[in-house]
Amino acid sequence: MSNVQPILLNGTWTASSSAQSIQVSNPATGETFPEHFPVSNWDEIDRALQAAHEAFLTVVNWPGERFAAYLEDYALALDAHKETLAQIAHSETGLPAPTRLAGNEIPRTTNQLRQAAQAARQSSWRIPTIDTKNKIRSMYQSIGPAVLMGPNNFPFAYNSISGGDFATALAAGNPVIAKAHPLHLRTTLEMAKLAQEVALKHKLPAGLIQLLYHMSPEDGLKMLEDPRVKVAAFTGSRTAGLKIKHACDKHGKPVFLEMSSVNPVYMLPGALTERGPELVEEFAGSCLLGAGQFCTNPGLVFLVDNPSSQAFLQGVAEKFSAAQPQIMLSTQGRDSFHQSLKFLQKEGAQLVVGGAVVDGHDSKHQPTLLKVTGDQFLSKMTQFQEEAFGSSSLFVIVKDVAQMIVIAGQLQGNLTGSLYSSRDGSDDEIYNRLAPLVNRNVGRLLNDKMPTGVAVSSAMNHGGPFPATGHPGFTAVGMPASVRRFSMLCCYDNVRPERLPVELQDKNPGGIPRFVDDQWTTNDIVTN
Amino acid sequence: MSNVQPILLNGTWTASSSAQSIQVSNPATGETFPEHFPVSNWDEIDRALQAAHEAFLTVVNWPGERFAAYLEDYALALDAHKETLAQIAHSETGLPAPTRLAGNEIPRTTNQLRQAAQAARQSSWRIPTIDTKNKIRSMYQSIGPAVLMGPNNFPFAYNSISGGDFATALAAGNPVIAKAHPLHLRTTLEMAKLAQEVALKHKLPAGLIQLLYHMSPEDGLKMLEDPRVKVAAFTGSRTAGLKIKHACDKHGKPVFLEMSSVNPVYMLPGALTERGPELVEEFAGSCLLGAGQFCTNPGLVFLVDNPSSQAFLQGVAEKFSAAQPQIMLSTQGRDSFHQSLKFLQKEGAQLVVGGAVVDGHDSKHQPTLLKVTGDQFLSKMTQFQEEAFGSSSLFVIVKDVAQMIVIAGQLQGNLTGSLYSSRDGSDDEIYNRLAPLVNRNVGRLLNDKMPTGVAVSSAMNHGGPFPATGHPGFTAVGMPASVRRFSMLCCYDNVRPERLPVELQDKNPGGIPRFVDDQWTTNDIVTN
Repeated sequence: MSNVQPILLNGTWTASSSAQSIQVSNPATGETFPEHFPVSNWDEIDRALQAAHEAFLTVVNWPGERFAAYLEDYALALDAHKETLAQIAHSETGLPAPTRLAGNEIPRTTNQLRQAAQAARQSSWRIPTIDTKNKIRSMYQSIGPAVLMGPNNFPFAYNSISGGDFATALAAGNPVIAKAHPLHLRTTLEMAKLAQEVALKHKLPAGLIQLLYHMSPEDGLKMLEDPRVKVAAFTGSRTAGLKIKHACDKHGKPVFLEMSSVNPVYMLPGALTERGPELVEEFAGSCLLGAGQFCTNPGLVFLVDNPSSQAFLQGVAEKFSAAQPQIMLSTQGRDSFHQSLKFLQKEGAQLVVGGAVVDGHDSKHQPTLLKVTGDQFLSKMTQFQEEAFGSSSLFVIVKDVAQMIVIAGQLQGNLTGSLYSSRDGSDDEIYNRLAPLVNRNVGRLLNDKMPTGVAVSSAMNHGGPFPATGHPGFTAVGMPASVRRFSMLCCYDNVRPERLPVELQDKNPGGIPRFVDDQWTTNDIVTN
Repeated sequence: MSNVQPILLNGTWTASSSAQSIQVSNPATGETFPEHFPVSNWDEIDRALQAAHEAFLTVVNWPGERFAAYLEDYALALDAHKETLAQIAHSETGLPAPTRLAGNEIPRTTNQLRQAAQAARQSSWRIPTIDTKNKIRSMYQSIGPAVLMGPNNFPFAYNSISGGDFATALAAGNPVIAKAHPLHLRTTLEMAKLAQEVALKHKLPAGLIQLLYHMSPEDGLKMLEDPRVKVAAFTGSRTAGLKIKHACDKHGKPVFLEMSSVNPVYMLPGALTERGPELVEEFAGSCLLGAGQFCTNPGLVFLVDNPSSQAFLQGVAEKFSAAQPQIMLSTQGRDSFHQSLKFLQKEGAQLVVGGAVVDGHDSKHQPTLLKVTGDQFLSKMTQFQEEAFGSSSLFVIVKDVAQMIVIAGQLQGNLTGSLYSSRDGSDDEIYNRLAPLVNRNVGRLLNDKMPTGVAVSSAMNHGGPFPATGHPGFTAVGMPASVRRFSMLCCYDNVRPERLPVELQDKNPGGIPRFVDDQWTTNDIVTN
């Protein structure tokens, strides 16, 4: 087959021995791009695993500085190719090149790489803990080869060769095997070329950064179960995520999974009375952004049945009707979105506005608003918590606040939960009853704010209870915490001083904050 | 049935409605104690779950101080009843009352409770992280009802109503449902009475601390899968542990599992040449301690085939022959130990010394030394890594250092790994090749030290890669890290200042170390 792209295997761009391949299309035109990307067979997956395994033994004692320097240079390379990369990604995803991609997502991505570099350099994620009396010292350290599987909706910021998982897995000192997402294979290849060039310049071992495009689901799970893989990360559908989780769980391997979220928004009565029109703007802006293709799209809204809520619903419906349908990430994604909306309607949700695919080859769907009563919702909790990935939301019109509280106590885990309340304090009593229920059921609790927009901040938690993720103690965003997803806790008991990792030795030339004899300090340890 | 003991359900000592019960025996005499302990049915498990669920809603916003004060008073109560408790536990476990129990384990247990109290009071486990610019604040918080299942070998320090899991689950602010271990039901009941008395004094909600003795395996797994349970901890056999893991994994619930470990010891050639007799003492002391019934018993020793190793083996064999067999925790435990030793021999291990049950009703077994060659070990890696829980060790006589390294790279995860090397540096090259392999395969790497003896230290890691535990990022021992096993990460985005948890508000009257705008500080936040 002509035009088959090479895989990045053990430091070399290598022709795949597989006869199978996949291609990617332009969602704005339906046109298929000429490049073929191999579906890797087990032989080459095995070679990648072996190379990663060997690379880990090479870098296991490297200081964070070497990874930091690499990440920063790679960020520079991405910045330098920003316009080209944005154009390629635009052609694969339909996302606006100047505003969303070059203007926003690529800078966010290189910022993440730089923050990860800083975490690697400062060892802030390691929590070095020292007990001088007992001669016991411990900290988080690299764990080994990481398999990364990014989602469809962020060709840069969550891409397995450039995104948050890549940045943090490497910052922790782990080899990375990136699996491309099938919707942006060309973008991924282009970045991997840069990643590889910079890796050569930095003399990284051959198997430290590798790229495979695709594989059979069976081989993918076999790879995750292989003892040479020590950790994995996945962002995508719940169906795939649960299979990946099971494969890793069987072997007790840490795996970070982000597996869909409906992000409940609770509109308390006083807030709607006080500032309904303002909230219409806020909600519609959030739900229409990026064709609603965000993990944090506000997909479920709770409103008490009263005139203010009706006005809010009416206002949002008007906004949705007036909104221009946007190009979605793929025609498959649009069709899957449509199926999810059909499913919700089949279960009894009433269509308020939208609901239809837009004719044409440009992957568009009408923004869609659905509604159910609180009683309906309670009778089919599982079904009505199904995510529809696009500009849509299910409004749940509850009888009263008591019903809202009952539902809040029974919802599945989500990435976020938003509570809007009045400024005059009239909602405070309801807030105080709802907040603890929502708080422990989500990764991030918001007040008077929509969940879209995930700041890359040390205090961010982009995580949450199952089934939103696989474990409520970890976050995909925010340094240094997100680095710890790719680590293990290592303890040194009576280990001779010169054999300790530098971060645990008496001298602390890097001024790392360390927990020494139960106190945080950046000082050297002076022993008598 | 007469003499059936009540369960601690929803704050009240309650007669079980179950017709089934279990009893406990004295391992030193074979005598069965008269008390019956109910096997709880689903109805009472369900009531316990509901009570725990409701208790959580009551305490969800309580400051750490309230849990701290409880834990400290409970520690005082245990101290005050130390002699009685030690006698009861001695009669159930055969462990020496004055030295091991009253003299060592109970003080360790109350020390753990006090360290957990300090962690709760100081919020040191929460890692409060604040981004003032973006108005995002996050920290680890309580997660909800915890089911705790302790092991047979520590009637106090790991008991589900007094041990490290109990202390840390409560310190994090979670309700606890303790399941007693069947080998020390009377001890557990006695402590639960104290726990309950102190709870009443502290006006804790009724469902915060509950005790069930036993249940069917099916009901146990059903309990773990119930949505009201949010986290669990288990220390015990791999067979049970894997079932518990699966039940929790299905629902993405954090679970800390300690599931057996053989704790490899690598005796490098120079160390044995240099100080063989000293190492014989050290090894035999560790392996014979407490009848070898420790998670960290040195169960696997690697030696290069040479005269020093033969002398070491001979020396240990003599120590084992001369050692007085000790009362084991139970006759069942002794029999199970014996079966494990038989299994290893069936697989080809050669008996060096010991191997037999000691006649009589006092649950004794000879200390046992087995050996295999490195080739044998490599041909049956899984079999020869089976734990035999008692005073025994499998010596692996490898051909050469290269074979030792090959094996080290393929071992299962363990709690600990010990490397003994010469003081003159002649083993350093071997050490440097072995250490990275051992390091990433264990929770704690030791130099010139046996793994038994787990200091309760902030820097301790009593954890490790699967299958020793369920996740390599968590530890069962060491405050504050072990508290985080029972927590989730909670983020507050734009949440109104007065609604934030106290630890995340601008004022920091407790002087908690917080990571504010990427710097550790104990200061208040001054916003303009």
